[in-house]
Amino acid sequence: MKIIIDKETLVTALELITPITDKSSSKPILSNFLLTAVPGEGGAAGRVTLSATDYEISIEGSFPAQVSEPGTVCISAKKTYDVCREFISGEIGIKTDAQMWVTLEGGASRLRLPSVDIGLYPQMERSALPNRFRINGKALRRGFELTLMATQANETRKNLSGVCSRVANGEMKLIATDGHRLAQVLRPVEVLAGTEHPEIIIPRKSLLEMEKVLDRAAGDVEISHDARALVLTTDSVVVMTRLVEGKFPNVESVIPRDSDKTVLVNRERMITALRMVSTMSVDKIKPVKITLNEGLLRLETERAEYGDVGDEFPVDYTGGEFQTGFNAKYLLDVLTVADHGERIELNFKAALSPCLVKVPEDSNFLAVVMPLRLEW
Amino acid sequence: MKIIIDKETLVTALELITPITDKSSSKPILSNFLLTAVPGEGGAAGRVTLSATDYEISIEGSFPAQVSEPGTVCISAKKTYDVCREFISGEIGIKTDAQMWVTLEGGASRLRLPSVDIGLYPQMERSALPNRFRINGKALRRGFELTLMATQANETRKNLSGVCSRVANGEMKLIATDGHRLAQVLRPVEVLAGTEHPEIIIPRKSLLEMEKVLDRAAGDVEISHDARALVLTTDSVVVMTRLVEGKFPNVESVIPRDSDKTVLVNRERMITALRMVSTMSVDKIKPVKITLNEGLLRLETERAEYGDVGDEFPVDYTGGEFQTGFNAKYLLDVLTVADHGERIELNFKAALSPCLVKVPEDSNFLAVVMPLRLEW
Repeated sequence: MKIIIDKETLVTALELITPITDKSSSKPILSNFLLTAVPGEGGAAGRVTLSATDYEISIEGSFPAQVSEPGTVCISAKKTYDVCREFISGEIGIKTDAQMWVTLEGGASRLRLPSVDIGLYPQMERSALPNRFRINGKALRRGFELTLMATQANETRKNLSGVCSRVANGEMKLIATDGHRLAQVLRPVEVLAGTEHPEIIIPRKSLLEMEKVLDRAAGDVEISHDARALVLTTDSVVVMTRLVEGKFPNVESVIPRDSDKTVLVNRERMITALRMVSTMSVDKIKPVKITLNEGLLRLETERAEYGDVGDEFPVDYTGGEFQTGFNAKYLLDVLTVADHGERIELNFKAALSPCLVKVPEDSNFLAVVMPLRLEW
Repeated sequence: MKIIIDKETLVTALELITPITDKSSSKPILSNFLLTAVPGEGGAAGRVTLSATDYEISIEGSFPAQVSEPGTVCISAKKTYDVCREFISGEIGIKTDAQMWVTLEGGASRLRLPSVDIGLYPQMERSALPNRFRINGKALRRGFELTLMATQANETRKNLSGVCSRVANGEMKLIATDGHRLAQVLRPVEVLAGTEHPEIIIPRKSLLEMEKVLDRAAGDVEISHDARALVLTTDSVVVMTRLVEGKFPNVESVIPRDSDKTVLVNRERMITALRMVSTMSVDKIKPVKITLNEGLLRLETERAEYGDVGDEFPVDYTGGEFQTGFNAKYLLDVLTVADHGERIELNFKAALSPCLVKVPEDSNFLAVVMPLRLEW
């Protein structure tokens, strides 16, 4: 192999694939990535493909390069990334020698790495998947972000450890819940193949990696999947991930339909108040009592031996006095991520009913936070 | 007690003292701080004093406030800081009630804290110390920073776990070494009391806290000390610290006086090269071979089974070929902190002699890095 590639292109590609390579020594082969160079045909520029997998998720990116000699090598992702990003030249030359050592050169800076037999690196399956749709990349990324916060961080219930996706009637519904809160986002899609798309659960870790890929994607992206695997295709990157096995709970009944107390709060002001409350509580659960009066919202913590906090601020609310209790952390998580509006709409029903959170500017987002029974 | 204090003043003061309050539960009293309010006399504004100690170091700051009722309370530093910094009002009112609960109010936000009997909080000794001098605060801060990096991070040799200060002939000499590298800074001082100032060793942790205090100090500051304790006085803050017991080694003989090979390197370029080298080595020690030729400096790591790195760049050097070895991390530490010049002067003698590092723009700084014997 002998190629010349733009330094920033190589470093950006390595930034995408290095996080999924394994730094532990239990499976040393997974600390490597595959670099394949293909010459251009009919005057077109050549391309290099960088790919890596950790068995759960695979990422493959294709980028332009000057390819003098095609070939494939398998080398350490972290060492290549750590050293090449320090290179001060605009271009990096990569070549192999007869002993299959790989030399990467940027100006007078040089990295030599032993390559691993490419036959040892796990093959990534690339079968065609029956269900396919097209979606705006940035809208999908934001959908992941808005729902990820409601997934279960520890994996005690496997089926809650990811975001559920349901595609029907030209719409993708992303839902996540950990039993204490729920987030739901709707996004228009253009279905390309498959009539009844099965419901799937995308694992947290894959969503985080896909967010990074979508950050760099322009325009529309394509998703194809079956019940076990999903492939996200952007202009230059393909991400393949296994899906979470299991059935996502039916959460439709959890979303309140009959809230009759609507409050519009200034998002920043409410976050400030919730942060004070969260700081004060020494427990993992951060109980806060919310009291509504016409035009005013009050938050307070229980009067404990180590102290208490209270705060109040004006809100748009015209009903009578109403009191309820929540885990301040869950409300804080929702308000922090739902930063697409200056104001947030909170909908209540009874003291022990869930709170329905909406953003006036975005009817495609909603969140639900379950109440806490307060004994004070 | 009943006072009104500017919010930013209170939060800034708490930022200084909270880091030394103890978060562990072994000595709960040390998680608190003392707040003392004194009314102004003859039309002058009142003042509040915030102070905290962890037995090793004490910090006391004095700030203006409107004092309606004087008094002293002892309350949780972390809770006060975490909640008050969220207050959105410009001023904070603080008052105590008959049960000695303290209420802090900023607009409609309110924090209530139980106060601790002030008699339980450790008294800070304030005896007059015999040796006193005045020094520019910013120059002192930079002196701490330039030498701290050479102190021993683990405390296997107590006397190397701080920065040694020697004051003589109107000059303060700060020296630190961990046996592998050494840093020395000279600063002019104005001696106010004491004829023969004893050599002292200021502990790492106290230096880090003093750096933060000096960041906020304008103009000159005063230091007084004996052999066991040191007091730093700025316009509004007093820091008291115990000193490290023990004798600092005589390091004069370690500083090379007969280097005959001088190289001027571009600091950023050398840092880039050293970072590549450090990244490559899997050991804790990061051996690098340095080869000088007229106008050129080459760095390389050993050819190991996991790969190697080489780099070279033009430098100002007119001697013949010369080769030596170092721990790249130690050179990197010096070059990173010595950022007051675009170029760095490296002085060598023989392959196994220490390297004397200087900054052309600053004759008051020098560092020494011990060589590594390379078997390749």
